[in-house]
Amino acid sequence: MDFPSQVKIREVGPRDGFQSISDFIPTEEKLQIIRSLVDAGVSEMETTSFASPKAISQFRDAVDVLRMAPRKGVVHSAMVFNRGGAGKAIASGADRLVVVVSASETHNRKNVGRCIAESLSGLDAIFQEAKPHLMPVTGAVAVCFGCPYEGEVPVNQVFNIAETYVAKGADAVILADTTGMGVPTSIREMVPAFRDRFPETELILHLHNNRGTAMANLLSGLMSGVDIFDTALGGIGGCPYVPQASGNIPTEDAVFMLEEMGIETGIDLEALISEARLLEKRLGKILPGQVMKSGPIFHKKAGIHP
Amino acid sequence: MDFPSQVKIREVGPRDGFQSISDFIPTEEKLQIIRSLVDAGVSEMETTSFASPKAISQFRDAVDVLRMAPRKGVVHSAMVFNRGGAGKAIASGADRLVVVVSASETHNRKNVGRCIAESLSGLDAIFQEAKPHLMPVTGAVAVCFGCPYEGEVPVNQVFNIAETYVAKGADAVILADTTGMGVPTSIREMVPAFRDRFPETELILHLHNNRGTAMANLLSGLMSGVDIFDTALGGIGGCPYVPQASGNIPTEDAVFMLEEMGIETGIDLEALISEARLLEKRLGKILPGQVMKSGPIFHKKAGIHP
Repeated sequence: MDFPSQVKIREVGPRDGFQSISDFIPTEEKLQIIRSLVDAGVSEMETTSFASPKAISQFRDAVDVLRMAPRKGVVHSAMVFNRGGAGKAIASGADRLVVVVSASETHNRKNVGRCIAESLSGLDAIFQEAKPHLMPVTGAVAVCFGCPYEGEVPVNQVFNIAETYVAKGADAVILADTTGMGVPTSIREMVPAFRDRFPETELILHLHNNRGTAMANLLSGLMSGVDIFDTALGGIGGCPYVPQASGNIPTEDAVFMLEEMGIETGIDLEALISEARLLEKRLGKILPGQVMKSGPIFHKKAGIHP
Repeated sequence: MDFPSQVKIREVGPRDGFQSISDFIPTEEKLQIIRSLVDAGVSEMETTSFASPKAISQFRDAVDVLRMAPRKGVVHSAMVFNRGGAGKAIASGADRLVVVVSASETHNRKNVGRCIAESLSGLDAIFQEAKPHLMPVTGAVAVCFGCPYEGEVPVNQVFNIAETYVAKGADAVILADTTGMGVPTSIREMVPAFRDRFPETELILHLHNNRGTAMANLLSGLMSGVDIFDTALGGIGGCPYVPQASGNIPTEDAVFMLEEMGIETGIDLEALISEARLLEKRLGKILPGQVMKSGPIFHKKAGIHP
């Protein structure tokens, strides 16, 4: 099977990445990062989250970030958890809302303190808020490829949630490997089954690298025809309690691989690398991204053994 | 295309990994690591190198390591650079010799101080030493998928070296992405071309993760029918001067992915993880492996966002 000629990168660093950073990143710094990503060519972004500031205080400036983020044709998505958040996101200039429900009961309860059915019926208020504004909604399904509490997740649980999203009006679904439990075969099974069942719905893969498989899973997704992937600058995101555990796919690593494969992303790799290195300095910790360490292609200091 | 049902892992940590560690690892510690790898089910290993101790003093105990390494049906390979090294390796109980030549002139000169033609004619003495002992020889081609000094490497340069190896009697060839410049499409192009040209020769892929692509390249190799891959415990190897730069594919990450895909490796993942964690303590630095941080499948502390 052949690869798509173009891939859209959904940069999730400002949401999924910042979420896992406990120290508050000043609003102006967040905006600098967002601006640089846009300047590098990122055209779609999960820009912030309207999670309760009590739960995640990193996002207490969600309104300001969204209001001041550069437009330039960029699609700014905001993650929302209730009608109030949806209203604020829309009023602050969000281009798209993202809702999330986990495909396992235990994970959903740990994540939002409710069972799946409650989460799903809670979505009505969000979709009602979005509708008069013609605001598109993306539905994310967490732990699609395995749950850290329950283990294997039946594909029907994933598709039932997707079905509900689509029925309520979502035009895009994110299949998320929240804790990096998927492997290329699970991607290769789920993607065509999803396409069969939801032929009109945009499919996005959100892959974490907790077990080193994220780039292989991206490749498997590509080979199954997926052309939208979530990635985060420097590979931020994931669990702050596991030192050096990888989070999302580093945006610059994905762009490097895709462009070298002849697949267009529209993103400037050199600019991303500079920004990832700056982010590493800002955060004061080594990030998982590899291209930011080795450089795009020539690296004089690279090892000299086979 | 379908995947092979079994894959052989060639553990290169004791050679490629240790090579990049400047502090001498005491011989007994090396042997402990080698024994644990064998106990975990590793059946083939690059166990040491007969590089000049002046060049790489880590291997000044090559004879002792090779003599005392556990047998149990394990194939112990030793990297050799001249007739003297080959003789010592054979006398110390090596099961197989590995020779290496780079596919780019500049890299070969930096690596061994000779041009490619000199390196290739220097092989005669090694093959002559091996022949009366019926000692098999594997030929490694470094920087097959790109050279950090010269950039793109013409496939003919790679195949000319492989041709010479085969003509001299090598029964296996390692195509090495020494500094992680390959991408899935370059693997997908080179592997079938290699098979066509050398149908009788065993093909091994040696993939580094300098740019985050190694596991995707492994998947691409699998899909092209490759069933032998070099990996290193914890992902050691690579350039010691780039902090946190990934080296080889972490053995435990490869075993995790392959086994989850239903491909047998014969290696005990839990045992590998314990050993990788111990190695991290021994070396006193965080290693690139991911499964060793997140655990094989259940991980209670894993992130709870999509």
